[in-house]
Amino acid sequence: MTSETLDLSLALLRQPSVTPIDHTCQTIMADRLSKIGFNIENMRFEDVDNLWARRGTESPVFCFAGHTDVVPTGSLDAWNSDPFQPEIRDGKLYGRGSADMKTALAAMVVASERFVKKHPDHKGSIAFLITSDEEGPSINGTVKVVETLEARNEKMTWCLVGEPSSTKQLGDIIKNGRRGSLNGVLHVQGQQGHVAYPHLARNPIHEASKAIAELCETVWDHGNEYFPATSFQISNIHSGTGATNVIPGTMDVTFNFRYSTELTADILKARVIEILDRHQLQYTIDWTLSGLPFLTPVGELVNAARDAIREVTGTETELSTSGGTSDGRFIAPTGAQVLELGVLNATIHQIDEHVNVAELEPLAEIYEQILVKLLA
Amino acid sequence: MTSETLDLSLALLRQPSVTPIDHTCQTIMADRLSKIGFNIENMRFEDVDNLWARRGTESPVFCFAGHTDVVPTGSLDAWNSDPFQPEIRDGKLYGRGSADMKTALAAMVVASERFVKKHPDHKGSIAFLITSDEEGPSINGTVKVVETLEARNEKMTWCLVGEPSSTKQLGDIIKNGRRGSLNGVLHVQGQQGHVAYPHLARNPIHEASKAIAELCETVWDHGNEYFPATSFQISNIHSGTGATNVIPGTMDVTFNFRYSTELTADILKARVIEILDRHQLQYTIDWTLSGLPFLTPVGELVNAARDAIREVTGTETELSTSGGTSDGRFIAPTGAQVLELGVLNATIHQIDEHVNVAELEPLAEIYEQILVKLLA
Ligand SMILES: [Zn+2]
Ligand SMILES: [Zn+2]
Repeated sequence: MTSETLDLSLALLRQPSVTPIDHTCQTIMADRLSKIGFNIENMRFEDVDNLWARRGTESPVFCFAGHTDVVPTGSLDAWNSDPFQPEIRDGKLYGRGSADMKTALAAMVVASERFVKKHPDHKGSIAFLITSDEEGPSINGTVKVVETLEARNEKMTWCLVGEPSSTKQLGDIIKNGRRGSLNGVLHVQGQQGHVAYPHLARNPIHEASKAIAELCETVWDHGNEYFPATSFQISNIHSGTGATNVIPGTMDVTFNFRYSTELTADILKARVIEILDRHQLQYTIDWTLSGLPFLTPVGELVNAARDAIREVTGTETELSTSGGTSDGRFIAPTGAQVLELGVLNATIHQIDEHVNVAELEPLAEIYEQILVKLLA
Repeated sequence: MTSETLDLSLALLRQPSVTPIDHTCQTIMADRLSKIGFNIENMRFEDVDNLWARRGTESPVFCFAGHTDVVPTGSLDAWNSDPFQPEIRDGKLYGRGSADMKTALAAMVVASERFVKKHPDHKGSIAFLITSDEEGPSINGTVKVVETLEARNEKMTWCLVGEPSSTKQLGDIIKNGRRGSLNGVLHVQGQQGHVAYPHLARNPIHEASKAIAELCETVWDHGNEYFPATSFQISNIHSGTGATNVIPGTMDVTFNFRYSTELTADILKARVIEILDRHQLQYTIDWTLSGLPFLTPVGELVNAARDAIREVTGTETELSTSGGTSDGRFIAPTGAQVLELGVLNATIHQIDEHVNVAELEPLAEIYEQILVKLLA
């Protein structure tokens, strides 16, 4: 079986591009894209390579977003084959990045080549926004490229993120949004003392206990058509000197909200503060907003993806906003419609990461049909 | 000013008897006591020196209990004089152990000498139970001596513990009991997971939050005539991997009860377990009973002490059961009446520990008058 998508996937998988090292993956992609008329911009920020490639100057702009970096391999002994020497066994392509997300990069390059060949004078523009910092701190990657584009008022209309969204079969799920993520570090101040003299101390564990119970059982919202209900989770709680006869003076509590579009980070902060104040705690709180929620309602991009999937695989796609964050959170605030569609995510970040070889050409075909529906 | 009590105090304070080292303090005491007819028994257990000295073979037995060991000095630079070179400044005697409790040891030796001189054929017996392990783990000290005495059926009728009980002036407070102390280590079992997928995890912080709030606000009893209400204090709470996106799998909570004679340790355990079970926690709990509560109601010993204090200082004494544990907890279970009476406790265990020189002879006089009332 020969497959252009498989061949390019293999070329990318042979590069040990452990985050934030791109290891020439973007060069391999750019070489192919420049041959079909893409303008290539390399945007390096600190130790991160980023690629902005665009064919055309007009609107609307269809952008494919993705990353060339991969998570570390873990113990090499645990792999059945070298994670950077991709190998096909029983119809499966093994290698670090095979699912997350080098096969999607290959599929979209091949899809673009085929589309441009058939539609050299397509409407609008096709673009690629590729980073080598999606699996790392996400500071010098997509967010910086988006800032650069925004500064020169270069807008995307539609953004397809090639993250592995499928769960049981190719295209069964596409993600049309992500929940927001808000972190808080609560520092409760008490007064240290001896357990035999509690009236001379203020135990922060005791003083905060009812507020914490209330935070844990609060219903923040009921979600909506696209989002599950907002969830609150305490990830860390620490107080105490280690001694069993000392009332501690402080307590630290770290928590995270995954929140729907029914709420904003400011509303959540205000509600937490109201609870802490009502329980008369003496405290400080540090907030970090690690991702705004975003949602792309049913519209041109969702419909193009659904139709393309149905035509290629016969599958009726389900919309989902579950799971962790993705770089889509940095693109959605520009006003672009953002959708995630890629291969099966069952083995991402794991030992013996793999993808079904038989899904590579259908994925390229889906991507091409989306281009057809939007830009032909 | 010459004072036999001061002289003997100075001799004891010059010994750097940091727990569990006795550093000849007990020898100094035993030499004096053997001269006035005490039978001397040295009971060494492991690294701890203990002295059991008794004058007479009859009942009733009046025992003075105390310790020669002291807590470490802390930073020597912080002291205004060498903690083991006792020094008098402005009427105060400075030195480690001056308040806790070498001056009381000296006062009782001198009181015994004076009493025996006047009443060589006193009723019953006078005894000293002295250890060098009160400030340490309390394993090879008083508890072992008491076991030895119990094994040979040697009983005390009254036991005066020379711990510093006074707060504002000599004899203003005597302690006729102590609360019990029960420790618990609670281990709550959950299921680790990712904060984005709370339905796949069980957060032990969340699951335990209502139970902990309930434990913190429970009224365990209302105390009684002699005891304040039982108190519950969490000293340590720990859960979390450090990562902000991981739901922890376990939580550990350490707590302590200081409890009155209205309750027993078994009742407290049952009530805690009832709360944890009612909140359907999956948990284990390890209990350590570090001291039973004890109480000496008003009777011969309390009255003798009150009358002696009033005669010597004019002070009306107050009974108290507050504060930490003392070795009285090991003696009370034998059936002895136990009372604590000593100098001011304001500076115990601190830098520049000291006692008022002017209180040393009155303390010896109070101790002697107690002997008069009970054994003359
Ligand atoms: Zn990815
Ligand atoms: Zn003491």
